[in-house]
Amino acid sequence: MESCIMEASYIKMASRNMASLSVEAVNSLLSDLADALEDSTDIILAANASDLARMDASDPRYDRLLLTPERISAIASDCRNVATLPSPLGRVLSHRVLPNGLDVSRVSVPFGVIGVIYEARPNVTLDVTALCLKAGSAVILKGGSDAEESNRAICSVIHNTLFEHGLDPATVTLLPATREATAELLSAEGLVDLIIPRGSAGLIRYVRENSKIPVIETGAGVVHCYVDKDADIEMARNIVYNAKCRRVSVCNALDCLLVHRSIEHRLPEILAPMQDTVNIHFSDFGREWLSHDLSIRFVSDVDDALSHIRQYGSGHSESIVTENQSVAERFLREVDAACVYHNAPTSFTDGAQFGLGAEIGISTQKLHARGPMALEEITTSKYVIRGNGQTRS
Amino acid sequence: MESCIMEASYIKMASRNMASLSVEAVNSLLSDLADALEDSTDIILAANASDLARMDASDPRYDRLLLTPERISAIASDCRNVATLPSPLGRVLSHRVLPNGLDVSRVSVPFGVIGVIYEARPNVTLDVTALCLKAGSAVILKGGSDAEESNRAICSVIHNTLFEHGLDPATVTLLPATREATAELLSAEGLVDLIIPRGSAGLIRYVRENSKIPVIETGAGVVHCYVDKDADIEMARNIVYNAKCRRVSVCNALDCLLVHRSIEHRLPEILAPMQDTVNIHFSDFGREWLSHDLSIRFVSDVDDALSHIRQYGSGHSESIVTENQSVAERFLREVDAACVYHNAPTSFTDGAQFGLGAEIGISTQKLHARGPMALEEITTSKYVIRGNGQTRS
Repeated sequence: MESCIMEASYIKMASRNMASLSVEAVNSLLSDLADALEDSTDIILAANASDLARMDASDPRYDRLLLTPERISAIASDCRNVATLPSPLGRVLSHRVLPNGLDVSRVSVPFGVIGVIYEARPNVTLDVTALCLKAGSAVILKGGSDAEESNRAICSVIHNTLFEHGLDPATVTLLPATREATAELLSAEGLVDLIIPRGSAGLIRYVRENSKIPVIETGAGVVHCYVDKDADIEMARNIVYNAKCRRVSVCNALDCLLVHRSIEHRLPEILAPMQDTVNIHFSDFGREWLSHDLSIRFVSDVDDALSHIRQYGSGHSESIVTENQSVAERFLREVDAACVYHNAPTSFTDGAQFGLGAEIGISTQKLHARGPMALEEITTSKYVIRGNGQTRS
Repeated sequence: MESCIMEASYIKMASRNMASLSVEAVNSLLSDLADALEDSTDIILAANASDLARMDASDPRYDRLLLTPERISAIASDCRNVATLPSPLGRVLSHRVLPNGLDVSRVSVPFGVIGVIYEARPNVTLDVTALCLKAGSAVILKGGSDAEESNRAICSVIHNTLFEHGLDPATVTLLPATREATAELLSAEGLVDLIIPRGSAGLIRYVRENSKIPVIETGAGVVHCYVDKDADIEMARNIVYNAKCRRVSVCNALDCLLVHRSIEHRLPEILAPMQDTVNIHFSDFGREWLSHDLSIRFVSDVDDALSHIRQYGSGHSESIVTENQSVAERFLREVDAACVYHNAPTSFTDGAQFGLGAEIGISTQKLHARGPMALEEITTSKYVIRGNGQTRS
């Protein structure tokens, strides 16, 4: 294991070179990276075929693992898009000239080295790399073993492009897909500045409980929609259907519908579009389904709905459908979640949808980042103080 | 231990009431709290005398533990000052109306329940309470056992004032000064939203390694000043003296002086003001002295200085004295620390000095807060999305 930690000190050195690149140099790197990825489509698909051969095609993870020429082009296109976004670095977050003449500014700077732990989605390898490089940081990737050959092929493209730009390939380091590598990454205090886990609730819990490095948790969502007695029922039907059925496997998908008891008789109207595809449960509250299942509970009023969400919600995304403005405002104020919606479905919880230009994950914690996170959230800041010999009395 | 966790769920309820208070109600509460503290001076001094009787007067912690009528008035005055600061809540941090008409805003909101672990400084009890209440959060305090009676007396004043304002005394909860209470606090996932340790490096390390709750680390600083060959020597002398001797026991005090080898012969001039009071060591690099001791090292150039700081610094505060603007800019850019100074002493690293109005600690981590933290840093945010039935395609 010694060897891996030694490697991390090279990564720290590489991160300092990355931090000193100009915005233009970073954007040119990302643009070339996108081209190189498309040029290597055949090699990447061959590696991906080898990964796919080890997985049963009926496995729900098969589709996540699958790459196609179109998917590779989409990944390259996202990378080009990151190149066009404004740099998150060097923003002056605050500036004061103190009465004694000291000039105090707080500016955004790179984190340094960011570790990302994820599962069998090879697209994440390039997505995360593009965002971390744009934010001036080096990145250590720990992907799932199911995607190991695909990830190695993508990383090889990244390393060639880094090398062509005169950068150390250690700027983007792919760890072996082993548990030992994860454990070592989580213990690399002083070498790694931030850990972002992306994946199942189990992975995220493991990282939270074992990391000695600051973590931004992403992902797991137990999502509710409360249909109030004063809801527009047609709107409720559209919102509930969109939240549940647009994509059932994502973290912003609806898990539990709360319906005001006085409109119990209108439930069939609300559920009509999904009656043949969704399994209804009047139980299993607090469960993240990620499937065509939906819990339903009748509540006596907005207090009852708020109380249910406090007890069972995970602080990800929650919504209310009502025409009553004061009930809506109360819900928006009192629900303690990253994203709270009025008359819109939770399916909008997404960095690109929110206009952030990109997304590295959806934070479900309150520290540093909450909700969809993009480039700003993977920078830190420092105070820069300029004086001319002032001293403190 | 069960009882304490049960208590924490009451604290969570109390935090929701706290979060719903108006700005005016919070400020009135803080103002009354300051008055009540001064009115209870005799009771608090009696409790403090009892704590002091258990400590040797030669203990360096004795002065930190000591309260006087003047110190109590100063604490009350700081509390009144917090009442006058702008509320950190309800700030619109970003706002977009998307092409589909969705109105997406990110607003600052309270954390909920903040746990603060500190040592034998009874003034922290009220300082931290005032800041957390102003930021709309409940607070769980875990003070040092040396200050237990002083803390209980101050908390009793806080509880009376909360009660008079119709608030649950559980809004501010003082835990027993035991290790078990600390361990339980660090494990109270879901009940406590944020932990802030204030104190020695040992305390902070213990919290970092054992907390299952997000932590903002504060405090420990290994602080350098690099005197370049192009320094104004008189300015260097004043800056070094101020950084080392203004208060030796604080985290922004100078620990190690780096001097360009070509001006080695001018060291006596630089050290002149402290020649009778400070012990010089040409060793012990990377040590936080908190005493009248100073390490000194000669370096060959700014690269050598940067390399020393990378190896031994703790990322707190670092400074350079030079008239060479390009060397200064390089130092400011490349040093990876919360606060980097040019031609000014690190003694300015302080929330009040930076114009933040107050300070809950100095963060030495990169996540969420870095450098002096005040009210904004003890809030979180949420996205509030208002629609009229939009769905995602």
